[in-house]
Amino acid sequence: MKIYSIKQLLSKGKKALHEEVTVKGWVRSFRSNRFISLNDGSGINNLQIVIDFNNFDPTILKQITTASSIRVEGTVTESEGAGQEIEIIAKKIKIYGYANPEEVQETILQPKRHSLEKLREQAHLRFRTNTFAAIMRVRNALSFAIHQYFNQNGFFYINTPIITGSDAEGAGEMFTVTNFDLNHLPKDNQDKVDFSQDFFGKKTNLTVSGQLEGETAAMGLGKIYTFGPTFRAENSNTTRHLAEFWMIEPEMAFYDLEKNIDLAEDFLKYCIQYAVDHCKDDLDFLNKRFEEEQKQKPKEEKSEQNLHEKLEFVLNNKFIRLSYTEAVEILKKSKANQKGKFKYPIDEWGVDLQSEHERYLVEKHFKSPVVLFDYPAKIKAFYMRLNEDQKTVRAMDVLFPGIGEIIGGSQREERLEILKQKMNSLGMDEKELNWYLDTRKYGTVPHSGFGLGLERLILFVTGMSNIRDVIPFPRTPNNADF
Amino acid sequence: MKIYSIKQLLSKGKKALHEEVTVKGWVRSFRSNRFISLNDGSGINNLQIVIDFNNFDPTILKQITTASSIRVEGTVTESEGAGQEIEIIAKKIKIYGYANPEEVQETILQPKRHSLEKLREQAHLRFRTNTFAAIMRVRNALSFAIHQYFNQNGFFYINTPIITGSDAEGAGEMFTVTNFDLNHLPKDNQDKVDFSQDFFGKKTNLTVSGQLEGETAAMGLGKIYTFGPTFRAENSNTTRHLAEFWMIEPEMAFYDLEKNIDLAEDFLKYCIQYAVDHCKDDLDFLNKRFEEEQKQKPKEEKSEQNLHEKLEFVLNNKFIRLSYTEAVEILKKSKANQKGKFKYPIDEWGVDLQSEHERYLVEKHFKSPVVLFDYPAKIKAFYMRLNEDQKTVRAMDVLFPGIGEIIGGSQREERLEILKQKMNSLGMDEKELNWYLDTRKYGTVPHSGFGLGLERLILFVTGMSNIRDVIPFPRTPNNADF
Repeated sequence: MKIYSIKQLLSKGKKALHEEVTVKGWVRSFRSNRFISLNDGSGINNLQIVIDFNNFDPTILKQITTASSIRVEGTVTESEGAGQEIEIIAKKIKIYGYANPEEVQETILQPKRHSLEKLREQAHLRFRTNTFAAIMRVRNALSFAIHQYFNQNGFFYINTPIITGSDAEGAGEMFTVTNFDLNHLPKDNQDKVDFSQDFFGKKTNLTVSGQLEGETAAMGLGKIYTFGPTFRAENSNTTRHLAEFWMIEPEMAFYDLEKNIDLAEDFLKYCIQYAVDHCKDDLDFLNKRFEEEQKQKPKEEKSEQNLHEKLEFVLNNKFIRLSYTEAVEILKKSKANQKGKFKYPIDEWGVDLQSEHERYLVEKHFKSPVVLFDYPAKIKAFYMRLNEDQKTVRAMDVLFPGIGEIIGGSQREERLEILKQKMNSLGMDEKELNWYLDTRKYGTVPHSGFGLGLERLILFVTGMSNIRDVIPFPRTPNNADF
Repeated sequence: MKIYSIKQLLSKGKKALHEEVTVKGWVRSFRSNRFISLNDGSGINNLQIVIDFNNFDPTILKQITTASSIRVEGTVTESEGAGQEIEIIAKKIKIYGYANPEEVQETILQPKRHSLEKLREQAHLRFRTNTFAAIMRVRNALSFAIHQYFNQNGFFYINTPIITGSDAEGAGEMFTVTNFDLNHLPKDNQDKVDFSQDFFGKKTNLTVSGQLEGETAAMGLGKIYTFGPTFRAENSNTTRHLAEFWMIEPEMAFYDLEKNIDLAEDFLKYCIQYAVDHCKDDLDFLNKRFEEEQKQKPKEEKSEQNLHEKLEFVLNNKFIRLSYTEAVEILKKSKANQKGKFKYPIDEWGVDLQSEHERYLVEKHFKSPVVLFDYPAKIKAFYMRLNEDQKTVRAMDVLFPGIGEIIGGSQREERLEILKQKMNSLGMDEKELNWYLDTRKYGTVPHSGFGLGLERLILFVTGMSNIRDVIPFPRTPNNADF
């Protein structure tokens, strides 16, 4: 007897009629002692199992409760109900695991949308809910699309270090990694902690970015990408920040900023298209959820587009590209700015753009994803390539509706002397980054790269609004359960 | 003018004759002021560039040194030299970056095999060497094969947490993650470190395994896998251990141990076949390296097979499966045991098998990959399913020639009461793992999974012998450079 996943069987549809099959899964509901709605995680849609209760031991039927797990052997027949082509007439049922209905009622296995927050506290059970399982399948599809895109385009996957002795990138505050017993720290003769006795012989941290190491790899392998966890020890309790998140960082030898932006746009569209093509059912479900959520919002916050439309819009439009300088002109002249509606008014060239400005450009002014480039050198990282104007650097940010910055990148400063000058002016220690400078000493080349926060992309594609709802086990201040 | 990667152009071969092309890369050698050997990281094979030195400025030619970076515009012509179909007659050359030949000579850019150790100290430059670049391309292919295999087989990729508040799995010693300034630790009223004031409100560690969290995901999504970094704070300075390595952990609802072993075998063969199919040139190169290395070994250590043969052997043979009990019988009766050649003699049932025993079974007795199963409960982890004999558990290890254990897995104990008894007998705190026990309370199902160390698989496929040579930035005791 063939064992099917529910997704396989539903996809086969009427071609499976009259087959004797085995399916296994968790009961989502059991109505009228007759209809079991079964799900095995393979997809959002449940399979209906029909029982003739005269043929089954009542003690078995009693154990078929929401969240219990069963195996069913039966015959595929045409379904009379709406919304499903086929169903299973059960011949044999085995109970794997019972689930006390009262306890289940109290826990999270309910479809109420407002329990998202409660669900986060029960991260180990939320994989059993429609919403979170759908998000996880979309997350899976996007992750695979990322690997496939780079694989098809000649990039090599590189694992940059998670534990690092280098803290020079300065992308954010770092966690310390130690093998010391913190209650018995070895001290040096100045009564400071003696890190030379720690596991790695020095102070080590969790990485905030694999970029610098990724650059060294690109200087040999040509085109590489990283895809791994990244950390920020910042006390940000917002819907957009995690202490542990997953980042993708491609780095390409011989790419200038234009090619870098072209790649970022093509890459994002590929990934979103992949999700649209491979997660239709899950996105339909998430779209309904999104529309429900919008209904409850005040008019001025309502999205003009539903989730499908948002995705199609990004796929079908070329991203607007403009320089920071042009963006500042637009913002300065905007009604929002002149009427004092920005929390941070735009009065002069050189200020860093805030989320409100990015969203204004994307959501109000252009109504399109926007790529800003050539930012003031002062507000960007040391490794970005200086333009001839000596004021701006070859940085670029891709801004998405509802999300803000989804990608940040740059052409890197490949000229050894200019890079050293920049580091010196910032008081950075050349010795610390000798290995990085070596890439500019031995056959330096123009090169570029960018970083994509995976969870930001998932937020956009799923229409969710809290980043904690798109990662299996969120790590945030005061929360590292499981 | 079309820009090609060198791999693309060489694959196109004679079909590219007479095309005007642009290529970019690093100079591997420049002979007779006429022949440049160019590599851009896309593959192991170099492209020959031919220069008519009468047509070029001598100051340009002087800058073409080993490790310098150039762009070449020229015409594809048939090559007269051996070993290459085509070459480029250069029309225009641009120097991107010079590399001082004396410095390069001193650093690592030499083909000497014995410099592997020196290369590790210069991890940022070893991407420029044939051997390491080939290994990295194989690593990339294997990583992609892993994602593709699971994707094609209905598994969902799950990111289990890197920072964890749970230390119950007991797979190894853990690193501490903290946001404290270690020179100013907050203390409680018993003068102990007050972890409630740390970033996560408690003591946190780096994960040693995502299995337990992976199980909770499989209990909703059916079939999942993790692929992420894992950590051991063990002071092991060996050729087989890293403090930071990458692990793949699939977990499948409704799988018993037999299906788990079937999956492990099919999965390993898929990945190895993928590398064989997609990394032919790199594996040819690594095979030559392997054969050279074997020549220098004493006779009793020489491998009977070259690298290609080793891979084909695994692909073409069904893995031998036998129980721990059968294995102990074989080992007990073996000449090696009776002549006292094992460091740890096998005298009774119940002892843990050492690497020497595993290698004896694989390399001497069966001359085949071996899967051992049904190990004594006492030497295995708490979560493995107890057999009816009450003595053994449904554990399995896949043993490979030259590597030893490449995969370890088990069917999990899905029966709540038996699991609790086991935990109690080991003095484990049920409260700590309440979330894990929940999966056995609400619709528990038989399930199984295993763990594969990525670097062990790469060692096998590349024929390398030191695990530090198959990861970009190895982390080992006293070493966290870069």
